[in-house]
Amino acid sequence: MTNRTEERAMRESTTKRLGKLRALIAEKELDALLISQQENLRYLSGFTGSGWLLISERKALLVLDFLYVEQAKGESPGFEIVQIKQDLHDWLPGLVSDSGWHKLGFESNFVSYEAYRKLSETVKAKQMNVELAATTGIVEQLRSIKEPQELVFINEAAGLGDAAFERAKATIRPGMTEKEAAWQIEKILRHKGSETMPFDIIVASGPNSALPHARPTDRKICSGEPVIIDMGARVGGYCSDLSRTLFFGQADKTFQKIYDIVLRAQTAALEGIKSGMAASQADHLARSVIEDAGYGNAFGHGLGHGVGLAVHEFPRLGLTSTDCLAEGMVFTIEPGIYLAEQGGVRIEDMAVLEIDKIRVLSRASKAA
Amino acid sequence: MTNRTEERAMRESTTKRLGKLRALIAEKELDALLISQQENLRYLSGFTGSGWLLISERKALLVLDFLYVEQAKGESPGFEIVQIKQDLHDWLPGLVSDSGWHKLGFESNFVSYEAYRKLSETVKAKQMNVELAATTGIVEQLRSIKEPQELVFINEAAGLGDAAFERAKATIRPGMTEKEAAWQIEKILRHKGSETMPFDIIVASGPNSALPHARPTDRKICSGEPVIIDMGARVGGYCSDLSRTLFFGQADKTFQKIYDIVLRAQTAALEGIKSGMAASQADHLARSVIEDAGYGNAFGHGLGHGVGLAVHEFPRLGLTSTDCLAEGMVFTIEPGIYLAEQGGVRIEDMAVLEIDKIRVLSRASKAA
Repeated sequence: MTNRTEERAMRESTTKRLGKLRALIAEKELDALLISQQENLRYLSGFTGSGWLLISERKALLVLDFLYVEQAKGESPGFEIVQIKQDLHDWLPGLVSDSGWHKLGFESNFVSYEAYRKLSETVKAKQMNVELAATTGIVEQLRSIKEPQELVFINEAAGLGDAAFERAKATIRPGMTEKEAAWQIEKILRHKGSETMPFDIIVASGPNSALPHARPTDRKICSGEPVIIDMGARVGGYCSDLSRTLFFGQADKTFQKIYDIVLRAQTAALEGIKSGMAASQADHLARSVIEDAGYGNAFGHGLGHGVGLAVHEFPRLGLTSTDCLAEGMVFTIEPGIYLAEQGGVRIEDMAVLEIDKIRVLSRASKAA
Repeated sequence: MTNRTEERAMRESTTKRLGKLRALIAEKELDALLISQQENLRYLSGFTGSGWLLISERKALLVLDFLYVEQAKGESPGFEIVQIKQDLHDWLPGLVSDSGWHKLGFESNFVSYEAYRKLSETVKAKQMNVELAATTGIVEQLRSIKEPQELVFINEAAGLGDAAFERAKATIRPGMTEKEAAWQIEKILRHKGSETMPFDIIVASGPNSALPHARPTDRKICSGEPVIIDMGARVGGYCSDLSRTLFFGQADKTFQKIYDIVLRAQTAALEGIKSGMAASQADHLARSVIEDAGYGNAFGHGLGHGVGLAVHEFPRLGLTSTDCLAEGMVFTIEPGIYLAEQGGVRIEDMAVLEIDKIRVLSRASKAA
C-alpha cells in the first residue's frame, strides 16, 4: 500500500470506530465520553502519544499538551485539537460547560482516584450541573473484535515472532546466558522489521523457568533442562505473543512428561474453543487436562489474554473471567506447569476466533 | 562487588528506606501504607514485578499473584509474602481487619478510581472501622534524594549514554533513516551493557525535530538540518537520559542561532541552580534566556525532571512546579526551542545537586 491509501484506510476505520463508539455512548445515555487509556486513544484517533480524547455525538476533541500538538496534527487529521497546560481538573470543567454536557463518562480503570477527586471537587465548587459517570471496558470491547486490516498486522507480527523463534532456536546453545539469548532474539526480531518490543523478552532456564514472569539473568543455559522463551513482535502498532519451551540435548524425564501434559492441555483448548463460549469455560478445557494429570496447583495463571494494540487486552481467559468469546477476537492460549525451584513449561500460541472455531496464527514448531 | 556483598548492601538499604518510610507513616498518623507504584515497590523491597506492598510499624507484606511468588522470594528476602488471587477489594479488607489497622494510606495517584470505589464499597458493606486515606508523593520524596550506591548506578548509566552517543555520532550519516539511526544507537547501548531501554530512543530530523516526543520514522536524515537524539541507558535498574542536537555538514543558519540560545539557556541553569531553590525558579533561569531571545513561546515544556529508577520522577522542574530542589537530587536540564514544521533544538544533561551547586553527570560533547 502507498502511504496515501494507508492514510485513507486509517481515516475510514477511525470514522467507523467513532460511529460504533457513539452508538454505545448514546446507549449508555452519556453526553460525552472522556478517554485516556493510551491504546484506546490510538485505536480511536490514530494518535500515538499521551493525552485525552473527548467524544460526543458531534465532537471529537483531542486534548493535549504542547509536547504532542504537532504530532497529533499529523496523526489525527480529523480531530479538533485543544492545547492545554495543566491538570484534568483545570481544563475539563470549562470544556464541559461550554459544550452543555451534563453526563460525562470517564474510564474509571484509567483515571486515578486523585485525578477524580480533584475533578469532582472542582465540579462541586463551581456548582456545575455535571454528573461524572464511571465506565469500564467500552472501547476495550470494540477493540477486542478485530477488523481485517488489524488481522493483517497481527498476522505479520505473529509471523515475525515465528521466524525469529526458528532462527533463535538454531543459534541458542547451552553455555549461552539467558541475557545473551534474549538479546539474540531481540536483534533477530528487530532486523526482521519488528517495531519496538511489545514486552521484555523472557528467556528462563532451569529453575528460573518456574517463574512465569522471569527476567533474563546471567545464568548459563544447561543442556537437558527446560528453557522457556516468551517473546513478541510489533507491526503497525499491533503485537504478537509466543512462548515455547526448549530442551537442548536430552530432555529431563520429569519435564518431558510435563511438556506432554501442557501440550495436551493446549490442544484441548485449541480444538474445543468455540465462539459464544464463556472465557472461563475455555480456561477449563485446558485446566482440566492439567488437573487430571495431578498438576492443577502448578498452573497458577489464566489460559490466555486478548492481543492487539496492547499485548494484554480484553478478553481475559481464566477461571474467574466473566468475559465471553466472540468471533473476531484474537487471544493467546498458553497453559503452563511450574514446579518451584525445579522449572516450568509453557506453550503459547496466538489464535483468532472464526465462525465457531479457532484459527491458530502461531506457526513456530512445538517439537521441544 | 560479589553477588553476596551486593545482596547484603541491598538488604541494608531497603532496611534503611523502610525505617525512613515508617517515620513518615507515623508522622501522617497512618496505621499502614499501601504501595502499588512499581518503582516505589522496587525501591522499598527490591521486588521488580507487579504487586502490592503493605507497610506498617511492624509489618512489611508483599502481596502478590502466583505469577510473582517465586521471584519475590529471591528478590525480597526480608518480606512476608502473601499470595492472592483476586482484586484489591477482595483481599485487602481481610488483611486490614486481621491487623487491626484503622487508618490506611494509599497512593491516590496510582490507584484507579474504579479500584478505590470497589474497595470503599466493600469496606462500607462490611461495616469496617477503616478510613482510606489518600496520599501522594511519600515514597517519591524519599526516592528523590539519591544514596551513594544509587549515584554509582546512575553515573554508570550516564557514562553508557555518553559513550554510545559518541559512537553513534561517528556512525550516523546523512541518508540513513531515523529508524536505522535509532536502532544503531540501541545496539551500541545494549552491547555496552545497558539493561533494557528506559524509553524509546528519539532520532528526529529536520521538521520532525519540532516534535518534542517524536518517534523515529523512515525519513532520511539530510545534511545541515537539526537532528535531535534523545536516549538513555539503564544500569542496576537506574536510568540515564541524554539529548543532543546534531547537524551533519554545514548547519542551517536559523538553527545555528537557535542552538546558541538553547546552549546559553542551559548554561544559565547549570550555573545558577542551587540547593533550596524552587524548581520553578530553576526553570526560570533557562526560560528567561530563551524569552529574552524572543523564543519564549517555542519552549513549551519544562526545564527538566528527576531521574532514578524511573526516567521521569520527582522533582519536576517547570514553570508551575511547586517542588523544591534539595541536595542529593538527580535531574535533567533540558531546554529546547521548537519551530513547527521547521525543526527544533534540545540539549539535555543529567546532573546531581550537591552542596549548593550542580555537578553535571553527562559528558557527551555539545559541539553541534
